[in-house]
Amino acid sequence: MTSRRIRIFDTTLRDGEQTPGISLSPEQKLAIAKKLDDLGVDVIEAGFPVVSDGEHRGVSMIVAEGLSCEIAGLARANRKDIDSAADAGLNYVHTFIATSDIHLQYKLKITREEAVAKAVDAVEYAKSRGMQVEFSAEDATRTDRSFLSKVFSAVAAAGADRIDIPDTVGYSTPEYIAEITADAVEASSNLPISVHCHNDFGLAVANALAGIKAGASCAHVTINGIGERAGNASLEEFVMALKCLSHGNGESYTTGVTSERLYDTSKYLSKTVGMQVQPNKAIVGENAFGHESGIHTHGILNNPLTYEPISPELVGRKRWLHVGKHAGIHGMNAMLSEYGIETDDRQSYAILEKIKAIGDQGKFITDVELLTIASEVLGEKGIRRLVKLIGFSVSTGIGTMPYAFVKLAIDDREFAGTAYGVGPVDAALKAIEGTMGRTAKLQVKDYNLASISGGSTALCEVTIVVEDEHGNTISTKSVGEDIVTTSVKAVIDGINRIMLKNLLKDRKE
Amino acid sequence: MTSRRIRIFDTTLRDGEQTPGISLSPEQKLAIAKKLDDLGVDVIEAGFPVVSDGEHRGVSMIVAEGLSCEIAGLARANRKDIDSAADAGLNYVHTFIATSDIHLQYKLKITREEAVAKAVDAVEYAKSRGMQVEFSAEDATRTDRSFLSKVFSAVAAAGADRIDIPDTVGYSTPEYIAEITADAVEASSNLPISVHCHNDFGLAVANALAGIKAGASCAHVTINGIGERAGNASLEEFVMALKCLSHGNGESYTTGVTSERLYDTSKYLSKTVGMQVQPNKAIVGENAFGHESGIHTHGILNNPLTYEPISPELVGRKRWLHVGKHAGIHGMNAMLSEYGIETDDRQSYAILEKIKAIGDQGKFITDVELLTIASEVLGEKGIRRLVKLIGFSVSTGIGTMPYAFVKLAIDDREFAGTAYGVGPVDAALKAIEGTMGRTAKLQVKDYNLASISGGSTALCEVTIVVEDEHGNTISTKSVGEDIVTTSVKAVIDGINRIMLKNLLKDRKE
Repeated sequence: MTSRRIRIFDTTLRDGEQTPGISLSPEQKLAIAKKLDDLGVDVIEAGFPVVSDGEHRGVSMIVAEGLSCEIAGLARANRKDIDSAADAGLNYVHTFIATSDIHLQYKLKITREEAVAKAVDAVEYAKSRGMQVEFSAEDATRTDRSFLSKVFSAVAAAGADRIDIPDTVGYSTPEYIAEITADAVEASSNLPISVHCHNDFGLAVANALAGIKAGASCAHVTINGIGERAGNASLEEFVMALKCLSHGNGESYTTGVTSERLYDTSKYLSKTVGMQVQPNKAIVGENAFGHESGIHTHGILNNPLTYEPISPELVGRKRWLHVGKHAGIHGMNAMLSEYGIETDDRQSYAILEKIKAIGDQGKFITDVELLTIASEVLGEKGIRRLVKLIGFSVSTGIGTMPYAFVKLAIDDREFAGTAYGVGPVDAALKAIEGTMGRTAKLQVKDYNLASISGGSTALCEVTIVVEDEHGNTISTKSVGEDIVTTSVKAVIDGINRIMLKNLLKDRKE
Repeated sequence: MTSRRIRIFDTTLRDGEQTPGISLSPEQKLAIAKKLDDLGVDVIEAGFPVVSDGEHRGVSMIVAEGLSCEIAGLARANRKDIDSAADAGLNYVHTFIATSDIHLQYKLKITREEAVAKAVDAVEYAKSRGMQVEFSAEDATRTDRSFLSKVFSAVAAAGADRIDIPDTVGYSTPEYIAEITADAVEASSNLPISVHCHNDFGLAVANALAGIKAGASCAHVTINGIGERAGNASLEEFVMALKCLSHGNGESYTTGVTSERLYDTSKYLSKTVGMQVQPNKAIVGENAFGHESGIHTHGILNNPLTYEPISPELVGRKRWLHVGKHAGIHGMNAMLSEYGIETDDRQSYAILEKIKAIGDQGKFITDVELLTIASEVLGEKGIRRLVKLIGFSVSTGIGTMPYAFVKLAIDDREFAGTAYGVGPVDAALKAIEGTMGRTAKLQVKDYNLASISGGSTALCEVTIVVEDEHGNTISTKSVGEDIVTTSVKAVIDGINRIMLKNLLKDRKE
């Protein structure tokens, strides 16, 4: 088995920023670039300098930072764009011109010969300005195959250092990109080849891998797969597939990426660009290492490898289990024993039956509900709601601050408090934190809300992480119509869970 | 070119429902089954009847509905599970047993020979109960390859009608699944083969396609790719890839799916299960047919095929353009002319420069901002904010109804109104609708909110669709800290946009 080091060309800050709705300030771009450098990518494509003054400044700031990875910038195949890249301080330019007939005819309105002449001129000019040059034939996968080879051999002769094959509209299959990668290696007399794959049919990662297996040494990728339309090949999927899968061709692959930082980098990017990944996103989605069905949780408890392709720690994560209508006795008992509760078979089946009945109504079962059901079945006095919400009101508007009032019963004693915040949810949570503070130091560590579309009466789903004074955290979820009261219920639920857990742990010790 | 009809086995209601956090009532399952039947899938795997009473009832209800597609149900390879499936009225069972050593050793704790015996018994028993039998060797892709063939030939001899190859932990590459598909065709003496692919490394669709090209005739898929962990191969990506891509093997593929219904089905599922797809999801994500960068919008305006692999109408969608920091003059002029605004070159560049300056600050530019900037540059009196928010307050809590007060200036006349709703946002929007109703009939047609995680002070993003009395709609987005006031601003923005659009259209006509 020979091992090959694959180059990771990250274009989160260029193609990724072209995602409709994403706009980054120069300072945000620099902060993301530092994260990417920490992650261990080989190249950061920092932007498209000619686009705007801010973009130019962002690229310059990233160059000036002196990161350990290489920094590239995009330029169309013309002198103005290349000058802009050079003036931003770049010594590595990614220059491109479209080569497919549809782009030549409808967008550029030039002939194939004119495209080759422009490409050659751009490469020669960029070389004359002392830059490393990576050349892309835009829409390569829809370009006439023999013309594409002609373009690549012309730019190679003109001095290009690297060749990139963009699947601009995500139209390729793994088989086809493998074929034209082999063509490119030959046409360019063995220049290093990159592949730049889009995900319009969900094939971006497979296409990037196929390019690598066919002789490419680099892929253009983005964190969370952001980018134009359905986005680019996602860095985290591509890197983990290279690292973990058996490729069956006598080769293994390594990269410079520290995989344990993938989850943190993904979260950081989501937060900065304001675009979340879906729960079922590979590697970094909320559910990627979550298990509910009884068969799966049973397997996981015996050996995690039964239902996980890789250990979650490898990408900086933890697995989680959940009970619901598909729950089995093993998974449920494991969750109960996390709370220090041991049950006999009769008790377990009685609890499971009640859980399934709730799941059958289409309802999500929180851990507190599980513990409440367990306490009903076991008849244990100690397992009950410790904190009850007695009263609560919140107001916001224009010309006022969002403020909240809350009244809680903690171990049957009543406490009340008020607070203001940046919004009604923030005010409500701060009022609860403040009121709880009289008996226990607890804080809302993470707050996440995602409503479904379909009108202002649609259900919203709130996920909250509560942390106690010892740094223990617990996550809880609540669903309802009113964003504010649903958030408040989730926090109360989280507080009960973490207090219950601590209480049970204290008893056990 | 020979054409092959591929069977679509939809497991949204079985593997999809095993997504942690998703629980469906029998009525919800039936409603989704009807949507899937309308879409044109060949088989609906309706559930796992032995799991719970509600699940059993849901499957029975779907069977009783008399849909035009086939209905299957899941059963482990034992008589109890198969009886439960038969008792639910199913005449088609999908039965499975794990065959990989890791599952046999750690989960089932049986030998390979015992697994084969159980598989054969289950198939024979299901046949004796008069059912069509599809057999899955769970974790097939991590099963010893020659043992896997042994299993498939044993169940084929026992009377199985179909063989399924599950890539249970999403561990396969396209090359490997192609190899074992060919094995399965041979071992089963040409039984119809299905592939069931998971997306843990982002390869589910590529693996499913590889199985088809290697001789499988069916794939197990789910709407939006929901399912255990990172989910299953997504139906919409698989079907469109089969239909639109050139597979380079002399074969083309058809399915029974009406592609124009894909987007609507995806939206319906998201809403019912409460789990959204990410904006950069292929085919059905918000951005899949959205364009921002100047180069792309310029291409799209000349010929949409330059930057779209397929026409959005093919999957029941529309394309949209957006201006931002990567905007070019062509896309921006096209958007302005949508609003009836024609500019000369000097004016266009002046507007573009202001847009890029806003984008450089990391801000998203709404159409109203574009029109406001245009009105500044053009000095046109008519293009201005028609509706202004003068005052607004909202309250909610426990023991009270969420209620709102709003005061608007419409064409410089003041109007006020109050309303209550299911939550503070709903109350606020209803108050605005009611107040607007005095001058124009407008309603909030769609409301979508997705906050980023990171605490209750995190920014939230609201997207709203406003509809006028003629059924014209306009979409708008707002970002802020306070969920309620951000929603209110988005609606006011949307109202201004649709009123402006109508006003400009009236002038032009």
